[in-house]
Amino acid sequence: MLDWHLARNFRFAGVHCGVRPDRDRLDLALLVSDRPAAAAGVFTQNRVRAAPVRVCQERLPRPDARGVVVCSGNANACTGQRGLDDARRMATVGAEVLDCAAEQVLVCSTGVIGRHLPMPAVEGGIRSAVRQLADSPQALNDAAHAILTTDTRIKVATRTVSLSRADVRLTGFAKGAAMIGPNMATMLAFVCADAAVAPEDLHTIARRAAAQTFNCVRVEGHTSTNDTLLFLANGAGRRLEGEGLARFTSAATEVCAELARAIAADAEGAHHLVTLDVEGLRDDHEAALVARAVADSPLVKTAIYGADPNWGRIVSAAGYAGVLFEEEHLSLWLGDLLLYHAGTPQPFDADTASAYLKNNRDVHLRLRFTLGPGRCTLWTCDLGHEYVRLNAEYTT
Amino acid sequence: MLDWHLARNFRFAGVHCGVRPDRDRLDLALLVSDRPAAAAGVFTQNRVRAAPVRVCQERLPRPDARGVVVCSGNANACTGQRGLDDARRMATVGAEVLDCAAEQVLVCSTGVIGRHLPMPAVEGGIRSAVRQLADSPQALNDAAHAILTTDTRIKVATRTVSLSRADVRLTGFAKGAAMIGPNMATMLAFVCADAAVAPEDLHTIARRAAAQTFNCVRVEGHTSTNDTLLFLANGAGRRLEGEGLARFTSAATEVCAELARAIAADAEGAHHLVTLDVEGLRDDHEAALVARAVADSPLVKTAIYGADPNWGRIVSAAGYAGVLFEEEHLSLWLGDLLLYHAGTPQPFDADTASAYLKNNRDVHLRLRFTLGPGRCTLWTCDLGHEYVRLNAEYTT
Repeated sequence: MLDWHLARNFRFAGVHCGVRPDRDRLDLALLVSDRPAAAAGVFTQNRVRAAPVRVCQERLPRPDARGVVVCSGNANACTGQRGLDDARRMATVGAEVLDCAAEQVLVCSTGVIGRHLPMPAVEGGIRSAVRQLADSPQALNDAAHAILTTDTRIKVATRTVSLSRADVRLTGFAKGAAMIGPNMATMLAFVCADAAVAPEDLHTIARRAAAQTFNCVRVEGHTSTNDTLLFLANGAGRRLEGEGLARFTSAATEVCAELARAIAADAEGAHHLVTLDVEGLRDDHEAALVARAVADSPLVKTAIYGADPNWGRIVSAAGYAGVLFEEEHLSLWLGDLLLYHAGTPQPFDADTASAYLKNNRDVHLRLRFTLGPGRCTLWTCDLGHEYVRLNAEYTT
Repeated sequence: MLDWHLARNFRFAGVHCGVRPDRDRLDLALLVSDRPAAAAGVFTQNRVRAAPVRVCQERLPRPDARGVVVCSGNANACTGQRGLDDARRMATVGAEVLDCAAEQVLVCSTGVIGRHLPMPAVEGGIRSAVRQLADSPQALNDAAHAILTTDTRIKVATRTVSLSRADVRLTGFAKGAAMIGPNMATMLAFVCADAAVAPEDLHTIARRAAAQTFNCVRVEGHTSTNDTLLFLANGAGRRLEGEGLARFTSAATEVCAELARAIAADAEGAHHLVTLDVEGLRDDHEAALVARAVADSPLVKTAIYGADPNWGRIVSAAGYAGVLFEEEHLSLWLGDLLLYHAGTPQPFDADTASAYLKNNRDVHLRLRFTLGPGRCTLWTCDLGHEYVRLNAEYTT
């Protein structure tokens, strides 16, 4: 926490307002830029979008955002017109306390869906949070806690990148317990930077970063109604371009990658974090189709849980991905162990393979095709009894 | 068993040959038509096809099939050139004992993949089976047992349909324990009829019947390397056409539907058989996309296992199916209970909904859109601890 790099002119707060019954649990975060910030967002592709997602989409990208209000414990999703009114009201109350226009405030929610927000609690929370805003690691820590749902820990990633004109600091934090994902594993992430970036550039950076990081975490193929990534850049002066913009983009993507890995690794209920590399298909899209088919297969995931080097399930999952190939084009490794080569199962020591799965929390699967340069890396997890327990018994 | 309608001029046998170590377990079935039969097949769409599937695909449709050899316990999949040679050898040995050309014999295998068939045992089994061929219910019963893997019971469906010229009998049997499907839940089904049908017509009938029946059983989206549906029609004389062909088609589809339901219901490890009706999309393809997204969602399946009427998971699974709709277009029922209407969650008694899930093995989900005439019905199951146990611990 002490070595976090805090982007300048941003302040944070996290409070308990009462969305959650547990009084020890922070449930409302406020993120403020003391200067108008370029802002851009990337949102769920789900056709069913929560009210706060709709409100953010109306308002982004923009050059003058001032704050983000986030509540956890209630997703304000599938809540109809009243949900939209509530989301807008959150922004309006935020604007009142920050003395700006409502359109300059963005909103996020995460938690159970289909219930209306307890607006008096949320409004009180915003007014209380504004009094606690600070640019300290402790304040960021509070905000990072206040957005969590089923996460077991906060996710923070920061960077400083030295550009010719000045150092730029990036401060990111996120929520999402991807591995066990009860109730759709909403992912929220916020990246604050004290660089000057054009809103349209920020939008491009956010989209690319999401594609290379958060969109590679694959748990159950279930995209949430609330997934949101917001970028805010509040630097003054001449906007970044050329080499400077490229280096900023790279640092921003690194922050997102660190947050995405933290989400993938927050797997109280999963035994294994599985890194799945697919390469050698005609293009990246084909590689992604194969990677998703394998990552989404419950048979593959239960085999990994059972420490069973069941290459047949993996090969056949690739086979129904909708990508044209012949068995002869495919080879498969589990860790360093070649299980299947050019369409033929290889003799391998089943005990060694099983021990690899038993003894490693991080396991690696590699599918190599011989059809082209397309590649994709996904992170996923196994599927075991804890997954069933958590998802079958999850309420509120 | 006594009221089975046996198609004339077909004989059956089931024996233990040694593919499986357990001597009490039948593991080789022989199905013989005493006259040349029109034959057609429908096969897995998986890019990774088992050797017997390839051999059947080379030989079908054809007008003069004489027999089918099926072994269980070993899928002869992912076995390279030797696997293909073994599959052809099974047919050749079948042809020797039936005194016909090798091309007139079809082959199927189901069981573990990536292992070579114990060919001496298989050959011995074929020679032994031919001596036991009979046109009795007991012989059909043996054959129906000999094709099983993780099934808990045989699946047989028969019909007699009266046409103007004569009665036609249809005898179908199948294997597949779809609900818990360890090792890819291969589905095999055989329909024998004593009608005269052109091979091309039989092919069309088989494809349509599969689309409306077997392809609607949805367990984990994992299509097997070995899935095979074979139709044989050995009637002599003028081939069916017009009204007679239509009535035959209808009866054949009924036989397949009964077998498919039996597969969906053979769910030792599942608590619920879920019938999922999706209607009101622009076309049947869109409805199928939505139905598959919901049926394949582990979050939906664990919620049903947990007796949790979690409409949010269902609605949001529909949302990522890749079909354009707005929330306002969607309503959702669990049994008779309206959970979600035109985009708005409905007040419902959670205890009643939960009790519906707790107290019924067969449960019904209905998603109604307002966008067109497209519809789809799928059968699937819940996902619970037994699924994990069976699939994580499954070996051989």
